[in-house]
Amino acid sequence: MSVQKVLVFGAGRSSWFFINYMAQYCQKHNILLTVVDQSVQHVAQWPSITALSIDIHDEVTRRSLVNDHDLVVSLLPVAFHTFVIQDCLALGKHFANASYASDELKQLNEAAKQAGLMFACEMGLDPGLDHMSALSLIHDLQAQGATLKSFTSYTGGLVSPSADTNSWHYKISWNPKNVVLAGKSGAQFLEDNQLKSLPYHRLFRSCKSISVNGVNYQGYANRDSTIYESLYGLQGIETLIRGTLRQDPYCDGWDALVQLGWTDDVNLVDTNRYSWLEITLGMLGQKEIPFEGFHVNNRFYPQSIWDMMAELGLASAENANQAKMTPAALLETLMVAAWKLMDGDKDLIIMQHEFVYQKQGNTYKHTSTLSLEGDDDRHTAMAKLVGWPLAIFCKNFMEGKVKHTGLVLPLTADIYKDILDELEDMGVVFHEIEELITQ
Amino acid sequence: MSVQKVLVFGAGRSSWFFINYMAQYCQKHNILLTVVDQSVQHVAQWPSITALSIDIHDEVTRRSLVNDHDLVVSLLPVAFHTFVIQDCLALGKHFANASYASDELKQLNEAAKQAGLMFACEMGLDPGLDHMSALSLIHDLQAQGATLKSFTSYTGGLVSPSADTNSWHYKISWNPKNVVLAGKSGAQFLEDNQLKSLPYHRLFRSCKSISVNGVNYQGYANRDSTIYESLYGLQGIETLIRGTLRQDPYCDGWDALVQLGWTDDVNLVDTNRYSWLEITLGMLGQKEIPFEGFHVNNRFYPQSIWDMMAELGLASAENANQAKMTPAALLETLMVAAWKLMDGDKDLIIMQHEFVYQKQGNTYKHTSTLSLEGDDDRHTAMAKLVGWPLAIFCKNFMEGKVKHTGLVLPLTADIYKDILDELEDMGVVFHEIEELITQ
Repeated sequence: MSVQKVLVFGAGRSSWFFINYMAQYCQKHNILLTVVDQSVQHVAQWPSITALSIDIHDEVTRRSLVNDHDLVVSLLPVAFHTFVIQDCLALGKHFANASYASDELKQLNEAAKQAGLMFACEMGLDPGLDHMSALSLIHDLQAQGATLKSFTSYTGGLVSPSADTNSWHYKISWNPKNVVLAGKSGAQFLEDNQLKSLPYHRLFRSCKSISVNGVNYQGYANRDSTIYESLYGLQGIETLIRGTLRQDPYCDGWDALVQLGWTDDVNLVDTNRYSWLEITLGMLGQKEIPFEGFHVNNRFYPQSIWDMMAELGLASAENANQAKMTPAALLETLMVAAWKLMDGDKDLIIMQHEFVYQKQGNTYKHTSTLSLEGDDDRHTAMAKLVGWPLAIFCKNFMEGKVKHTGLVLPLTADIYKDILDELEDMGVVFHEIEELITQ
Repeated sequence: MSVQKVLVFGAGRSSWFFINYMAQYCQKHNILLTVVDQSVQHVAQWPSITALSIDIHDEVTRRSLVNDHDLVVSLLPVAFHTFVIQDCLALGKHFANASYASDELKQLNEAAKQAGLMFACEMGLDPGLDHMSALSLIHDLQAQGATLKSFTSYTGGLVSPSADTNSWHYKISWNPKNVVLAGKSGAQFLEDNQLKSLPYHRLFRSCKSISVNGVNYQGYANRDSTIYESLYGLQGIETLIRGTLRQDPYCDGWDALVQLGWTDDVNLVDTNRYSWLEITLGMLGQKEIPFEGFHVNNRFYPQSIWDMMAELGLASAENANQAKMTPAALLETLMVAAWKLMDGDKDLIIMQHEFVYQKQGNTYKHTSTLSLEGDDDRHTAMAKLVGWPLAIFCKNFMEGKVKHTGLVLPLTADIYKDILDELEDMGVVFHEIEELITQ
C-alpha cells in the first residue's frame, strides 16, 4: 500500500502549516502532491504542488481525481467531507481529516475495514491534539496504578496579549459562524459522581474560572463530555468535563448576548426599519439605554457589559440595511469586522488538562498546559495545531507506521506517541505541574 | 373545472369531522371520494368512501391516484405535503390543506397560477379560523373608519374542565412532539410601538395573564407576529401579538422544564444508568430532592411546580431503560402517557382576539371569544375546528365559489365569509364584547 500520490481538498484558512509540511515531505520523497482549492493562488508558493481548481459538486472530475491518487485528505468545511468519503470508499482510497468522526463515517467503519482502507478522523487540534495529549497522560497514570478521580480539559482559540485590542479579549481565528452558534447543543458532563447537564441558555452563565499563566479565563462545557468515559477508558471517574476557554469576561458578555436573543437563528429582523440599538432594546424589553447596568433573564449585568456590546456595534443608532436576517447572522457580520485578526496579529491557543488521581494512598493533581502563539494573522497557532498533527499522521501513514484499517482515531499510543514526539521537536510543548494535595 | 373526484391523503387524528362532512356532501352530489390512509379501518364507517392503503413513498401508485382525481387534500403530517404538492403541480390538480403555507408552496405560487390551479393553505384552526375570524372583525372595523391600535390573539387546544384531572390542566389533542418543542423558535412581536423579541428560554417566563370565562390562562407569544402587520393590513398598529393559551400555571411548570433542559433535543441520556430523578437533579445541579421549592436559572419555583413535575414522572426513582434518548424524547414518552385523553374525555378549544381601536375620538376595546368543547376523546373540538373550515372551503371550491388560482389563504372576505357563516350554523360561535375605554 505504498503511497505515491496524495490529494488534498481545500487550502483555505488553517491549511498553511499542513500544506507546507506535506509539500516539503512529498518533495523530498518524490511523492506527487495535488491540492484542489477554489483559488490556486493559495498554493502558488509551493512550486512542487500540482494546484487545481474544480467544482466540488462535479462528480465526474472529482472522482477521476480521487481515482488517480492513493491517499486523500479533506480540509473542506464539514458539510463537504461526505462527497470525498463516498468517493474514497467507491474507489478504494485511504482518507484522512481533522474533523469529528461523523455518523456517516462510523457507519462506514466495517465497509472500510473489509476494503482494507484507512479512514482517519479527529487528527487536528480539538478534536485531535486534545485526545493525544490527554491519553498520553491517562495511559501513563494508569500504567503507574493510579486511580483517576477527575479529568477536566479546556481548549481555547484566543488572541495573543500583544494583539488584544478589544474588551472581549477575543479575535476570530476560525469559522465565525461556529463562534456565533457555539454551545447551542448545551452540555452534559460528570461532576462529583453526578450526571449534570446545562441547556444552552445556562451554559455561559455557568462558567468555571480557570487561571492559566496568571491570566483569568472562563471555561464553558462542550456538548457531551460523558462519551469520553468509555472513549478514554475512564470508567468510574467522578468528574469528567471537556470545554472551551475564553478570557474573562468574554463569557459574561456572551451570556448577555444569548439571554437577549442575539444568537437566535430563526426569526428574521427587518433592518431597514429597525436600528441595531432598537433591536437590542427590543430584546431587553425597555426603551431607554442602560447607564447603570441592566437585567436580562434575572441576571444583573454591569454597565461594562453594555459597553462591550456597544463596542461590537449592537448599540449603534445606524440601521444594518440588510435584507431580512436573523439576529445570529446580523451578529456575525459585526463580529467578523470587530474581531478580525489584523496584519501581523498573533493568535494564541491554550489547552489545559487537569487530572486528580490517587496513588498509594495519596491524592495528586496534575496540570498539563500548552500555550502556543501564531506567527502572524495568516500563519496562526490554529493553523499549526490543526495542520501539524494531521500532516505528521499522514507522513506516518505513508511510512507504513499506521497498521489500522477502518475508522482510525488518535486514541492509542501507536498512533499518538510519534505525533506528540515530533510536535515537541517543533515547539509544541506541554508544561507539566504535579502537586500532592492530600497525604 | 367541475370537480367529480376528490382524493384525501391521511385519516388520522383530527380528520374525523373533515371526512364526515366531505363524505356526506360528496355522496349527496355524486362526487367520488377516495381516502388514502395507512389503515383503511379509519374510514370503514363511511361506506360511500373508497378507502385505499398505499405507501406514500411509492411514486408510481401515488401519481396514478392523484392523476385520477380533480381535487387533492392532504391531512398528512407536514413533512409529507411536498410529495402531494409536486404531484398536483405535475399532473394539473387542485390542492388544499390546513397547514402553514410552506416556502415551497410560496415558490410554486406563480407556476400554479399559470397552470390555472388552486393551492389552498391555512384552512384549519390555527392557521385558518384564526385568520378568518380576526380579519372579519378587522375589515369591519376598518370599514367603519376605526384606527386599530392593538391586536392580540391567543388560541389554545386545552382540556374541558369536566376532563381536567391533572395539575397541568392539560391533555394532548394534537401532535405530542409539537407540544414538547413548542416555542423553540422564540418570538418577536410589536408592543407599544416597539419591536420586541423573546428567545426560547425567556418565552415561558414572560407570559401574559389572560382571563377567559372567569378562568385564568397564560399566553405565550408565537414565532413571528410582525408578519401579520402587512398580511392583515395593520400597518402602523402599535401592538400586535399572536400567541398560544395554556391554563394557569402550565407555563410556570413548562418554564421550569425548559430551564432545566428537559426540552433539549441534542445530547443523549443513558437511561439504563440514570433514573428520572437522577436526570432531573443533575439538571438542577443538586443532589437533594427539593422540599420547599427550588431555583433554576435565577427564578424561584414553589414546591407545587416540583409536584407537577413529579406527577409527570420526572422525579421517579425508576429508570426509563430506553435506548439512549434526548431529554425531549424522554419527556414526550411521559407526557403521552400522563396527558392522554381518556375514553369520553372532552377537549376544549379557546380562541380570543382583543382589539383596541379609536373611532370618532373614542377608544374602544373589542373582545371576541370562541370556546368550543369536543364530543369525546375521538370526536375532539380540535378535529372539528381543523376539519370543518377546510371541508367548507373544499365544498365552496367545488361549488365554483372560489375564483382565485395560485396560493389561496383565507385572508379575503370572499373566502372567509361563507365559511364563518356556515360554521356559526354548526355552533362555532364567537362571543363579542365591546367596551368604551376612554371618551
